[in-house]
Amino acid sequence: MKDSVAAVNTFKNQHINRARLLINCPDQPGIVAAVSQFLFENGANIIESNQYTTDPEGGNFFLRIEFECTDLKEKTTALQHEFIPIAEKFLMDYAFTNVATIKKMAIFVSKEPHCLQELLWEWQSGDLMAEISLVISNHEDARTFVESLGIPFYYIPANREIREQAEKRQLQLLAEYDVDFIVLARYMQILTPQFVTAHPKRIINIHHSFLPAFVGANPYERAYERGVKLIGATSHYVTNDLDEGPIIEQSTKRVNHRDRVDDLKKIGRAIERNVLARAVKWHIEDRVIVHRNKTIVF
Amino acid sequence: MKDSVAAVNTFKNQHINRARLLINCPDQPGIVAAVSQFLFENGANIIESNQYTTDPEGGNFFLRIEFECTDLKEKTTALQHEFIPIAEKFLMDYAFTNVATIKKMAIFVSKEPHCLQELLWEWQSGDLMAEISLVISNHEDARTFVESLGIPFYYIPANREIREQAEKRQLQLLAEYDVDFIVLARYMQILTPQFVTAHPKRIINIHHSFLPAFVGANPYERAYERGVKLIGATSHYVTNDLDEGPIIEQSTKRVNHRDRVDDLKKIGRAIERNVLARAVKWHIEDRVIVHRNKTIVF
Amino acid sequence: MKDSVAAVNTFKNQHINRARLLINCPDQPGIVAAVSQFLFENGANIIESNQYTTDPEGGNFFLRIEFECTDLKEKTTALQHEFIPIAEKFLMDYAFTNVATIKKMAIFVSKEPHCLQELLWEWQSGDLMAEISLVISNHEDARTFVESLGIPFYYIPANREIREQAEKRQLQLLAEYDVDFIVLARYMQILTPQFVTAHPKRIINIHHSFLPAFVGANPYERAYERGVKLIGATSHYVTNDLDEGPIIEQSTKRVNHRDRVDDLKKIGRAIERNVLARAVKWHIEDRVIVHRNKTIVF
Amino acid sequence: MKDSVAAVNTFKNQHINRARLLINCPDQPGIVAAVSQFLFENGANIIESNQYTTDPEGGNFFLRIEFECTDLKEKTTALQHEFIPIAEKFLMDYAFTNVATIKKMAIFVSKEPHCLQELLWEWQSGDLMAEISLVISNHEDARTFVESLGIPFYYIPANREIREQAEKRQLQLLAEYDVDFIVLARYMQILTPQFVTAHPKRIINIHHSFLPAFVGANPYERAYERGVKLIGATSHYVTNDLDEGPIIEQSTKRVNHRDRVDDLKKIGRAIERNVLARAVKWHIEDRVIVHRNKTIVF
Repeated sequence: MKDSVAAVNTFKNQHINRARLLINCPDQPGIVAAVSQFLFENGANIIESNQYTTDPEGGNFFLRIEFECTDLKEKTTALQHEFIPIAEKFLMDYAFTNVATIKKMAIFVSKEPHCLQELLWEWQSGDLMAEISLVISNHEDARTFVESLGIPFYYIPANREIREQAEKRQLQLLAEYDVDFIVLARYMQILTPQFVTAHPKRIINIHHSFLPAFVGANPYERAYERGVKLIGATSHYVTNDLDEGPIIEQSTKRVNHRDRVDDLKKIGRAIERNVLARAVKWHIEDRVIVHRNKTIVF
Repeated sequence: MKDSVAAVNTFKNQHINRARLLINCPDQPGIVAAVSQFLFENGANIIESNQYTTDPEGGNFFLRIEFECTDLKEKTTALQHEFIPIAEKFLMDYAFTNVATIKKMAIFVSKEPHCLQELLWEWQSGDLMAEISLVISNHEDARTFVESLGIPFYYIPANREIREQAEKRQLQLLAEYDVDFIVLARYMQILTPQFVTAHPKRIINIHHSFLPAFVGANPYERAYERGVKLIGATSHYVTNDLDEGPIIEQSTKRVNHRDRVDDLKKIGRAIERNVLARAVKWHIEDRVIVHRNKTIVF
Repeated sequence: MKDSVAAVNTFKNQHINRARLLINCPDQPGIVAAVSQFLFENGANIIESNQYTTDPEGGNFFLRIEFECTDLKEKTTALQHEFIPIAEKFLMDYAFTNVATIKKMAIFVSKEPHCLQELLWEWQSGDLMAEISLVISNHEDARTFVESLGIPFYYIPANREIREQAEKRQLQLLAEYDVDFIVLARYMQILTPQFVTAHPKRIINIHHSFLPAFVGANPYERAYERGVKLIGATSHYVTNDLDEGPIIEQSTKRVNHRDRVDDLKKIGRAIERNVLARAVKWHIEDRVIVHRNKTIVF
Repeated sequence: MKDSVAAVNTFKNQHINRARLLINCPDQPGIVAAVSQFLFENGANIIESNQYTTDPEGGNFFLRIEFECTDLKEKTTALQHEFIPIAEKFLMDYAFTNVATIKKMAIFVSKEPHCLQELLWEWQSGDLMAEISLVISNHEDARTFVESLGIPFYYIPANREIREQAEKRQLQLLAEYDVDFIVLARYMQILTPQFVTAHPKRIINIHHSFLPAFVGANPYERAYERGVKLIGATSHYVTNDLDEGPIIEQSTKRVNHRDRVDDLKKIGRAIERNVLARAVKWHIEDRVIVHRNKTIVF
């Protein structure tokens, strides 16, 4: 706990003048010129810049710029105000985020702890720069571990019958802790459409197969039955189409005929935790942009 | 051509006393003892041995032994004769193959040449130890390349309407050249159930997705639509369940949002040719055993 | 802690009749026949068998057999006794190990906790089937975490000046806990030749580069300077030739020009912990055989 | 041949208005604003843009912009002229390149053909967008294959004794064909310092190890001796420090104790050809920037 708080504070101090600008608009000439001229005139130095056009003729344009700006805190309001005419001219969807404003995340977990552990571990070692506001589980198993790190743990029983009641309590807590996004770290309950709709592009799930293979339940059992030579995992934003949300990250590992279902699950756990951790970090750094049902990862 | 013929002859001379024994039987104690005692008494030295039991209690047992035996040619008949009582005792399915007996393969191809090229290249460099008896295509494109290597090329038009007529001619050629197995190196025609049934476990296909994802047509287009972060390819034995045959080998590669369908195809070509070449080599070396709808790859 | 103890007990019960036989001898015909006949006559059923010959003509032969044998405990002495004539005939180095006899390991660590954490985590989840007898460190940092899992932690200051004194205390503890092997999980102290010589093939180290590149100190700094596009890690048995011991496992990951030394270290940590965990598991399962300065990993 | 010429022509037509601007200068605020404003005012639309700063405070700044500009051919002189004041203001090293101006490459090869074949194959299939002006070899082996594709082949004997004489002839040919860069596709002769110095950042080599491991001769033999579990290959620009030039690309593959030197070479060939092909393509697309002894690959 101490380490992670210290790491967060160091990070905040180091990035007090660092901000990001994310832009999504119809492609046309002059966007980069206008934005970079704006940043230059406001004394900002571009640190990293990524852009992507779905189609040079009439497509969508996406831009993510990370910049340093002396006295950022004092200038933020002015920056945002002065950007309005540019945004209007180019019909931009856009957002400024201060890098030192740490995002608050909630983790939902059921019985299998490996994804939760990976996230907490990365967080402890200062490699996952978020505030873990709370952990919610429909089982008590993870309580000791979570609380030993000073993180609030809430046990909320959940199943098909009491789903709405459970979600009511969950939503209360999410509001109370002012959470920015939710990570389903092997949370084995379906969320209601209302819950999902209320958190667009803000719920990250880990699915234990290389989607779209083995959509649905028991992917490792089915992978074993099919005799695949690779198993994988997929992290995606949750939408109301089950296992069909925008994919953020995937990975696979080689298996062979000797690997039984239990071996596949064991191998799979290592893939799942890596894939989910990468997806969460990219989300935290505002690197993932959802466009239709796909992601752009800068 | 010269190189590959020389490589084959060198290989045959080096392996004149090398054979393989493949066994599939119900598991029970004593199998390895009986087989290894038999080989020892017949003056054979085990070079490589692989075994696998689906279940130690009442499962299937698979064994692949490669051995050296002085004067193998003279002893082969005796070896096979003397093995009969062991095979009967343990209810074995089994086969002896002489390593110096080079398998004869036919390659079927349509317009895309990369898988054909990879196989011919590996063959030329002496890395694929088979006789490429003939290439059959429903397009003329590959003729010059194939014939320049001294390999017979047959153009047999094929489509839904003339399928049976085309297959009649194909079967004639396969019989004429006494072919052992067939490789579909991006052959874009469906084979009839009769054709497939006549060549059980002897037709190897390359499918341009990491099955079971994107079963069916246009996998790269669908991969692009779905926004996957990995694309892959699968080599499998052909059965009459389309894209459902036993998987021999698979591989994936990372892609990103910048890769359009054409890029996916380009990246995919490299995966396809590697995956198919590995599957074909393992088949040639009798390393692939089909058990139900899965493979054991020793 | 509870989980890992329960997992160990379950494992022991499941494997009470499971043993391994490891053999190393000059290659000659008849070894497998003799060994498998011996096992069969003693009512043992072969579960897994791996063999390797360095050279079919006059080389070394290595065999690892895992077998099930009813009433193994009662039969062990007889089995070992009856095997003596076979071992003598074939001039074998050999060892029987009972799978249910869990190995005892000591972990040495300095300040960086990630390799220690990975091992403890795998152990907790029942994926690393050893007894972690104690953790020894020249820093106090890991104490809380280690002791929270019920594992004894010993702080033994160590540096060049007090090396022998530190090792004296370490050796005392290793003897006291009757430890089978030692894992250096980023232990940043050199061991004396006496210490190393006293534990042949029983000290496993993780080196933070893909040896033999960047032998010695500060590999990530030097990897950054050299501008490599891959970084890696290597797990090896410790010998008195620094970083020159037999390699057990290696892995690499892709990096690019944006990755500074700190990023390389972060990426490297993930490689190190995976590579070390695999090496330790293989050692525990008696899969690693040292032959001259190389390993055979079955 | 026909295919590759057709592919080149199609590519040129499609990219007639496409250019790249590469910039290297001291980092300071306003560079991107100035450059993008310049491009916008000249009617250019940015297609892809990559930038990198070695250090936000006082470091080097690198920029690669690919842009579309109607009537590029007519405007090129004006563009270059108008850019001069910007370049001077920011102390830029810079270059404009027209994408439709295809680079001319020479390939040097000795006996092993696999890297040459991979390059020619990629070229034939339209995936390597260069003109292969000539192939130079100190052996006759590749002549038939190279000439069958319509590419001039020159046999120039070379060894330590006649090195300067050989290079004189090579330099003559390179001048005659007006070659842009040279690929050493397993050319097993050392080049003189004069030759290398005359082609800075314009000779690409493939080294058959994951440098800096196994610098020098016989890397596969030494990898076998050391018992590594990964082998690799490295493509780098040639400098007069043997095997020490800036690394462009590397890759590794897993091997095991069963792989003898010949197997390592076979596995290595697949790595070498992939690594070299990627490095050459990136060079062709002006994606590789040498900074001190390292590369930035955009």
